[in-house]
Amino acid sequence: MKALVYGGVDHRSWVDVPDPAVKDPDDAIVRVDAVTICGTDLHILKGDVPEVEAGRILGHEAVGTVLEVGDHVRDIKVGDRVLVSCISSCGRCRYCKEGRYGQCQGGGGWVLGHLIDGTQAEKVRVPYADHSLHVLPDNVSNEDALMLADILPTSYEVGVLAGRVSPGDTVVVVGAGPIGLAALMTARLFSPSRVVMVDPAESRRRSALEAGADDVVGPEGAAAMVASLTGGAGADVAIEAVGVPSSFELCTELVRPGGHVANVGVHGEPATLHLETLWIKDVTITTGLVDTRTTPLLLRLLSEGKLDVGALCTHRYGIDEMQDAYDVFSRAGETGALKVALFNPDAV
Amino acid sequence: MKALVYGGVDHRSWVDVPDPAVKDPDDAIVRVDAVTICGTDLHILKGDVPEVEAGRILGHEAVGTVLEVGDHVRDIKVGDRVLVSCISSCGRCRYCKEGRYGQCQGGGGWVLGHLIDGTQAEKVRVPYADHSLHVLPDNVSNEDALMLADILPTSYEVGVLAGRVSPGDTVVVVGAGPIGLAALMTARLFSPSRVVMVDPAESRRRSALEAGADDVVGPEGAAAMVASLTGGAGADVAIEAVGVPSSFELCTELVRPGGHVANVGVHGEPATLHLETLWIKDVTITTGLVDTRTTPLLLRLLSEGKLDVGALCTHRYGIDEMQDAYDVFSRAGETGALKVALFNPDAV
Amino acid sequence: MKALVYGGVDHRSWVDVPDPAVKDPDDAIVRVDAVTICGTDLHILKGDVPEVEAGRILGHEAVGTVLEVGDHVRDIKVGDRVLVSCISSCGRCRYCKEGRYGQCQGGGGWVLGHLIDGTQAEKVRVPYADHSLHVLPDNVSNEDALMLADILPTSYEVGVLAGRVSPGDTVVVVGAGPIGLAALMTARLFSPSRVVMVDPAESRRRSALEAGADDVVGPEGAAAMVASLTGGAGADVAIEAVGVPSSFELCTELVRPGGHVANVGVHGEPATLHLETLWIKDVTITTGLVDTRTTPLLLRLLSEGKLDVGALCTHRYGIDEMQDAYDVFSRAGETGALKVALFNPDAV
Amino acid sequence: MKALVYGGVDHRSWVDVPDPAVKDPDDAIVRVDAVTICGTDLHILKGDVPEVEAGRILGHEAVGTVLEVGDHVRDIKVGDRVLVSCISSCGRCRYCKEGRYGQCQGGGGWVLGHLIDGTQAEKVRVPYADHSLHVLPDNVSNEDALMLADILPTSYEVGVLAGRVSPGDTVVVVGAGPIGLAALMTARLFSPSRVVMVDPAESRRRSALEAGADDVVGPEGAAAMVASLTGGAGADVAIEAVGVPSSFELCTELVRPGGHVANVGVHGEPATLHLETLWIKDVTITTGLVDTRTTPLLLRLLSEGKLDVGALCTHRYGIDEMQDAYDVFSRAGETGALKVALFNPDAV
Repeated sequence: MKALVYGGVDHRSWVDVPDPAVKDPDDAIVRVDAVTICGTDLHILKGDVPEVEAGRILGHEAVGTVLEVGDHVRDIKVGDRVLVSCISSCGRCRYCKEGRYGQCQGGGGWVLGHLIDGTQAEKVRVPYADHSLHVLPDNVSNEDALMLADILPTSYEVGVLAGRVSPGDTVVVVGAGPIGLAALMTARLFSPSRVVMVDPAESRRRSALEAGADDVVGPEGAAAMVASLTGGAGADVAIEAVGVPSSFELCTELVRPGGHVANVGVHGEPATLHLETLWIKDVTITTGLVDTRTTPLLLRLLSEGKLDVGALCTHRYGIDEMQDAYDVFSRAGETGALKVALFNPDAV
Repeated sequence: MKALVYGGVDHRSWVDVPDPAVKDPDDAIVRVDAVTICGTDLHILKGDVPEVEAGRILGHEAVGTVLEVGDHVRDIKVGDRVLVSCISSCGRCRYCKEGRYGQCQGGGGWVLGHLIDGTQAEKVRVPYADHSLHVLPDNVSNEDALMLADILPTSYEVGVLAGRVSPGDTVVVVGAGPIGLAALMTARLFSPSRVVMVDPAESRRRSALEAGADDVVGPEGAAAMVASLTGGAGADVAIEAVGVPSSFELCTELVRPGGHVANVGVHGEPATLHLETLWIKDVTITTGLVDTRTTPLLLRLLSEGKLDVGALCTHRYGIDEMQDAYDVFSRAGETGALKVALFNPDAV
Repeated sequence: MKALVYGGVDHRSWVDVPDPAVKDPDDAIVRVDAVTICGTDLHILKGDVPEVEAGRILGHEAVGTVLEVGDHVRDIKVGDRVLVSCISSCGRCRYCKEGRYGQCQGGGGWVLGHLIDGTQAEKVRVPYADHSLHVLPDNVSNEDALMLADILPTSYEVGVLAGRVSPGDTVVVVGAGPIGLAALMTARLFSPSRVVMVDPAESRRRSALEAGADDVVGPEGAAAMVASLTGGAGADVAIEAVGVPSSFELCTELVRPGGHVANVGVHGEPATLHLETLWIKDVTITTGLVDTRTTPLLLRLLSEGKLDVGALCTHRYGIDEMQDAYDVFSRAGETGALKVALFNPDAV
Repeated sequence: MKALVYGGVDHRSWVDVPDPAVKDPDDAIVRVDAVTICGTDLHILKGDVPEVEAGRILGHEAVGTVLEVGDHVRDIKVGDRVLVSCISSCGRCRYCKEGRYGQCQGGGGWVLGHLIDGTQAEKVRVPYADHSLHVLPDNVSNEDALMLADILPTSYEVGVLAGRVSPGDTVVVVGAGPIGLAALMTARLFSPSRVVMVDPAESRRRSALEAGADDVVGPEGAAAMVASLTGGAGADVAIEAVGVPSSFELCTELVRPGGHVANVGVHGEPATLHLETLWIKDVTITTGLVDTRTTPLLLRLLSEGKLDVGALCTHRYGIDEMQDAYDVFSRAGETGALKVALFNPDAV
């Protein structure tokens, strides 16, 4: 089969590789019908995630069809249309029993396209299939479901829930890329009074307004706008959706006494924590990897029409156009790309 | 009357000043029967708290007897033996209604010895007396009660409760001074499996063991000890009780995935937050000023013998020995001082 | 002035009474600009609330203009347009400090039209004015604000919040009167998947559909409908909004294992609790009187257009048509009355 | 092998039955080294649990040694000394993923000695071994561990945690049998100010005092005692540990406004819920079957010496004295039996 193989820093190739096979009785083999690229994949290509070895197939988000299952698999059946979640779960370790699947110590967690071969291929082996795949409702399209492989549960769990968004809140989301927009969409489930999106790029601020943001502003104007909207108090919740020190530090500046800063971004370097002003401010700061424990709920809301993710996918390709898709996605500033989707023409 | 007056950086004097008087109908005038000195007072003397003006009487902790009350005061009576809490509360603003008295926007919060004259004097004016004074049970001594003016509720609310100490937890307290010891004492209310106290000073580690710490260690050995005690996982809760960047950073290093870092220390400069490792670690970090909303509970536990604060007070003086007490307290490293108590000889 | 005076069981009269006066320095005197009648007033008239004495002016919901304030009142000013909340709060007792104003032990709680004279009059004395009145935003009409004097915070706090309505939930509200409809409106703030309203009266089921219920059903069909909607599991949350044993018992039958039953109704007799089936079912049952601690939030949501209470008020009168309004409201089955509003023609 | 077989109402026999065998690849076969009898077993014998069929081996609590495991079992090994928990868990259904194992819909929950053969035998087949067995620390004795098969986690989860016992609380436990004493022991983990045990039997009140109860009282004196201890307010938490209507009703009478009633008892008939007084009282009532999600924590506390369960076991037998043990346990009033333990002489 064909797959996108990481070849060391700045090297990727779309090449022939052997088909995956069941290695453990809890595995499933899934034909990839739709797949996308994550900002994290770009980080890997820059060498920021050193535990990814050359030769690894990238990708941790997909929708597909089950081709084969191991002997222990009970709930997932051959032929099922499934969401391949970015997080696998052994289901038995201490963290899995707490629903903290992202921290799985039994061989799960974020492994696809990281520690084992991933989804940017024609087929993928998924470990712990019963705990890591989600059968899709008929009325949810492959493209919409793809948005739930990573970014929707990530923004919802690590941003909205960890930040405790509540009715009437002023929520600030710093970063209007796919993760930021997904935070906007899922924050709405708790009826905040307003969601302010902060981004330096005018095109992304425009997308944010189209996706329903109440206000948009560049980073330099954010403090003044939030102060004016909140009578000087600050935001109830500030969600970091970029992954650079300045955006995190802006969140800690914008939050009100008693408020929450929820970090969602993937960071490659330390930030400065201004404890000389924050120590007295009753602030809660959370970090985290997604657990995908809300994926079944989000799938249901999507199926019921309570969640509209239509604004997230901007570019569509055939799966063999993988290199073009990477090219467009990696130049999001110019191309306006949010999420790009690649489809297997053999899928219905 | 006599009072300890701040005279600008590094200047303090024990001098005659006018007696305080009721200025607002919610005020009470309290004769100071017992008073103590806080590490924060030393910070003020170093100039770290610039909003404190020269001429200010310092001190925000006392036990005393009510001499006079304003027209609006309903619950507090002349003659009551009361705890003067470090936090005053208007009782009417948004934050007071949430029990977040430390953030009071109606003229309360931390004002005594900060924005208005404080308790290191023979008498003190206390604003919002009904919300800011606590009538003492007969069987609680002045000295014991004094420990509840600031350090016990601070350690309990900002450390133990914010850190969500739970049965079976491994709790690390960085800093074995009065705040750290008070965190140890109040953490016990939730039956952690062990409390590890970290301090560079051997004398303080010894005090910590005497006060019931399960393990003590210097900062350099803390990571190895916590790893060995927790099978490599890390501490469930790490409480910062010093107020310097390195101790905060140590807390973020010692905490397990999914754990809590509760900052109690008063900081004068920024710390480094290692988001490049923490972003994925599911950590919750909290900061805060005490609200003293648990003071009535802690007073009751003290009265019932469920809380023993005897280990905290190491030196006792007459109130007119204020300068000596400051001297001993400010050289805690040599003198072994934890809390120092000064008593008014006129009190029973 | 004129007032609606309770004269013992089944007797009410609209008669001249002396104007109220400030009796306590925390009081305010409010001119009543809009007032409504509660189902609880009908209970009083039936003799179900024996602590209400003959001679009492009824009513605990109003909007008005402040005419006079006592010496201690700090925040409320003469001329303010205010919401008179059904709950008064001393602000100083243990329960008020927890935000549990409905249980106030300092002379507040539900006192208006119950233990002291109420709002169905041209003027009313409100105790603890700073804690019990809410200044109204300019863009909120008297009629809309009136819905927040009791029923909106009651349904939100005692129904929606106590029942922990969450995104994706199936919520059942038993009773489609004003309280039930207010539960529907405020449940929406948490994006449940569906709200099913149960009522024996077809007219009320129709109102519920118009107000946005996803499904309506009579009591006898409720179990089958909820089972079919939830794959046999039962409702996540069941809210009792009637106040009779059968509707409470229905809630405990409809709720799923692990779900919540939130009782909002005012009951006059015991219900049967089927512990022989419920003991194993992981059910949480809550009761409560409203605290009105969410009234400021609800007022803000109303002012921002996030909450639409337009469907609640069905009949409007001049304040001197009080007896007619009572007549229509007490025959709600025939008249289709939900809330009735009476306006003072002297108000703008 | 020998086993205690239910033969219909009031019939039990200790007879030869075939040895159990692995039927599902997730099964384990465990040699029973220690076993006990539960009040629920007596209910079954009275016919109160009609889904138990004649021919069923009773018992849902044991400690044993693993003899054989199915092909899918990963964590449990032959030779492991294990706790056989009263609750089995498939680990994959919606409820198991929430940690609500008692409500398992995949073939787990309470099945042993109920829907499948149980532990009162020389061997037992345990389904979903990886999720349902707990490997024992070396320093925990079989007898002590046996107390964690059901009663400790039941009292802790369904009583103490559901009732939200907190530092300083007044806790009332109605019923001083094994479940009530286990509630007392585990409530202590949260440092309540006092635990009052209510029981009509003087012998049980005496046991309760010996086990550390602060006060004991008969049911008729409970209201007066609790009122006097709490200044008339009532108990913060009332735990029902009997399973009859009157004890539940007493709990709802003893609880303070804002307090919690946690029902632990197994009920066979309905109770009366006095909504005419409770509707206004802000009470939370919880029911539930144990999930055993805290069993690993309780085992650790036992191993660390933080939990002392020594007072619970009053009678010890060889496993072939099963009928005698039943006889003594079923006449607990006369015999003073709390828990009875039966040991396999072949175990070390």
